[in-house]
Amino acid sequence: MKTRVEILCVGTELLSGKVNTHISYFSLVLKSIGLNIAREVTLPDDPVEIQQAVRSSMERSDILILSGGLGPTFDDLTREGVAGAVNRKLKLRAHLLKKIKDKFSRYQLPVSVNNKRQAAIIQGAKSLENLSGSAPGQLLVLERRNRLPLSLILLPGPFKELQPMLEKEVIPFLQKTYCRFLCRKTLVLHLAGIMESQVDDKLRPLLTRLSPGLECTILAGPACVDLYVTATSRHPSWGQGALDKIRRTLHGLFGNFIYGEGGDTLSSVVGDLLRRRRQTLAVAESCTGGLLSSRITSIPGSSEYFIGSIVAYSNSLKQKGLGVFKSTLNVYGAVSKECAREMADGVRKKMGATFGLAVTGVAGPSGGTPQKPVGLVYIALSGPRIEHLEKFVFPGDRANIQNRSTVYALNMLRLALALQKS
Amino acid sequence: MKTRVEILCVGTELLSGKVNTHISYFSLVLKSIGLNIAREVTLPDDPVEIQQAVRSSMERSDILILSGGLGPTFDDLTREGVAGAVNRKLKLRAHLLKKIKDKFSRYQLPVSVNNKRQAAIIQGAKSLENLSGSAPGQLLVLERRNRLPLSLILLPGPFKELQPMLEKEVIPFLQKTYCRFLCRKTLVLHLAGIMESQVDDKLRPLLTRLSPGLECTILAGPACVDLYVTATSRHPSWGQGALDKIRRTLHGLFGNFIYGEGGDTLSSVVGDLLRRRRQTLAVAESCTGGLLSSRITSIPGSSEYFIGSIVAYSNSLKQKGLGVFKSTLNVYGAVSKECAREMADGVRKKMGATFGLAVTGVAGPSGGTPQKPVGLVYIALSGPRIEHLEKFVFPGDRANIQNRSTVYALNMLRLALALQKS
Repeated sequence: MKTRVEILCVGTELLSGKVNTHISYFSLVLKSIGLNIAREVTLPDDPVEIQQAVRSSMERSDILILSGGLGPTFDDLTREGVAGAVNRKLKLRAHLLKKIKDKFSRYQLPVSVNNKRQAAIIQGAKSLENLSGSAPGQLLVLERRNRLPLSLILLPGPFKELQPMLEKEVIPFLQKTYCRFLCRKTLVLHLAGIMESQVDDKLRPLLTRLSPGLECTILAGPACVDLYVTATSRHPSWGQGALDKIRRTLHGLFGNFIYGEGGDTLSSVVGDLLRRRRQTLAVAESCTGGLLSSRITSIPGSSEYFIGSIVAYSNSLKQKGLGVFKSTLNVYGAVSKECAREMADGVRKKMGATFGLAVTGVAGPSGGTPQKPVGLVYIALSGPRIEHLEKFVFPGDRANIQNRSTVYALNMLRLALALQKS
Repeated sequence: MKTRVEILCVGTELLSGKVNTHISYFSLVLKSIGLNIAREVTLPDDPVEIQQAVRSSMERSDILILSGGLGPTFDDLTREGVAGAVNRKLKLRAHLLKKIKDKFSRYQLPVSVNNKRQAAIIQGAKSLENLSGSAPGQLLVLERRNRLPLSLILLPGPFKELQPMLEKEVIPFLQKTYCRFLCRKTLVLHLAGIMESQVDDKLRPLLTRLSPGLECTILAGPACVDLYVTATSRHPSWGQGALDKIRRTLHGLFGNFIYGEGGDTLSSVVGDLLRRRRQTLAVAESCTGGLLSSRITSIPGSSEYFIGSIVAYSNSLKQKGLGVFKSTLNVYGAVSKECAREMADGVRKKMGATFGLAVTGVAGPSGGTPQKPVGLVYIALSGPRIEHLEKFVFPGDRANIQNRSTVYALNMLRLALALQKS
């Protein structure tokens, strides 16, 4: 039987424009002990909404984590909502009240009625110490016949109060109670140069015969696809073995489309390959307008292999800065394979780099013609005994076309480096 | 009777570490027509979970907006989940299938069985056109006795697909159906060069005496702050008048820190100023590595005023490409006000531009020294009868420092252009 976890985030501000980053944090911390979040619910500071949502979550779940609404103000109503849902009273705990009073007297502040409310704990619950704020957390465990116990966990909203409470008290408790024997490992593979639907088609036969304990998800970004494979088992060695085996299968299936694992990005992989070979890169950009350089230089230490780039929007800069022939621009135009090739050669020579990588195209929305539509992009790579040139017609808007051009340019360089004898 | 809106976000990735920024966007767009979100639920790609959550939301709500899970892969299951919840069949629509086929043939790609699923619409639902992706949205309206109708709205997950669909089709429909008598207008002001806490301090006295019907929210991004003011009233003229009045007050309070309104970005504002004056810009980047150029060229039509840029990571390129003196590099180093000034002058002259804008600094994480710590950045602007130079020490990681440098460089150019007599 799978342990079901639900998260309830309380706070009107989370439904009025504030971005909720807690869910992402919760999911990572829970994954570390093999638990997945089955559902997340965000609620306003409304005790009826809270009570109703807690009741319905309790029916479905084994672990219910609430965050927010434990503060001292009138709209902090999580305590009341949960107490109502479990039909229990709130009790003022003397030692907690004393702590709050002590804290306030240290700063010579009066203790209001509202501050006192923070010492109210649901009957039968354990209080969780708050190391950097005044509201304690609460942990209520309800035993159930023939089932895992139900845990209700109330945490404060501010991250710096919630984090130590969760990691020091709650996670060890959950691990002991629910995950004694369960071990989980994840493999993330990154692909480029292939579409989501193509990945899906190739993957489907494999998915139907996946071992129990293995789970596979496709995550598509713009021009990139990630594969997540998770192995859950009582035997740590099984999980690692299963992932090693499926990694080999996936490499057989997708070959060179796979560019990295885990925290790898196209820029970091290209950077590692260049650094290892002590080779350098120079870039010439037109329609990507600096985005390609920006991706490359987002990597710490990129100055080791990246010499620089020229973003040449004007034709005169293409001539003067990159050495594109005037006749090329006149006869073929700036968006042509001839121009792309001369840009790559030119920037390589000018900067004395091992490789020159160039992009020219029509990013739109204006500037397209029937012969050269918006989305037409040429990418050229020039290097020692290497010359690559590819033509693309990318879909989407300006940002999309610029982004795809960047991904495909980096991928062209990666493939060339991977095939090159080092 | 208040109109109740619930949001359902579908996607296992949203429960596995990916931050959900849609909720924040939804809340702002819905606020603009006077609707508040009563609850948000995040669900995994699981048709049973989806069906169950939709059923229970339907009982409570008037408007149910789902995003995600309309893509072509096996784990895109929102269509099936909602169809199950309302007990209706999915029907393949011929004209949608044709559209998908046409799109794929334009890029010479095969249409898989999965791509076809995107043409399946819930019986009785209206399809919503997807301007930048392949999955259409869906709108199903269920009439109810003695109550407002129930609207089920299925939107794709990617923001750029969801946004036009929501703003062009869904919002006008919701306004017509649910908010006939309430008029809401929103004013969004963008600020740069000022911190959130400073904005908060200046704003506080104003907020305490805000007219009823007016609401003001601060939204802070990295190095930028936005002010949202919303006026809600039954009389459209009141709202516009109240916003005009508060706009004047806010301009008095924040003056030149305000760089734009609504859809303006720093890059678009700078672009408009340059275009109007028929002036041109050339850029020299070191630590921002292309990000500044990329921001400038993200604006359609930027080729009218942007000539190009040189991203000079190596010192030799700073000399050869930008004309920085060897002695400057030897005596002051690449991260110095002297070098920044020569970079701005150099790129301006080399490219024959009206303005030269240059950034040099230590983006980190390595390369810092006690004299020149990580985060130290010089920004220089060179132009006709204009020379600006500023030194910053930015907090944060590499991405943060690169981003802040870019914002402050654009803002320096904006202020210079605004002060210049046109």
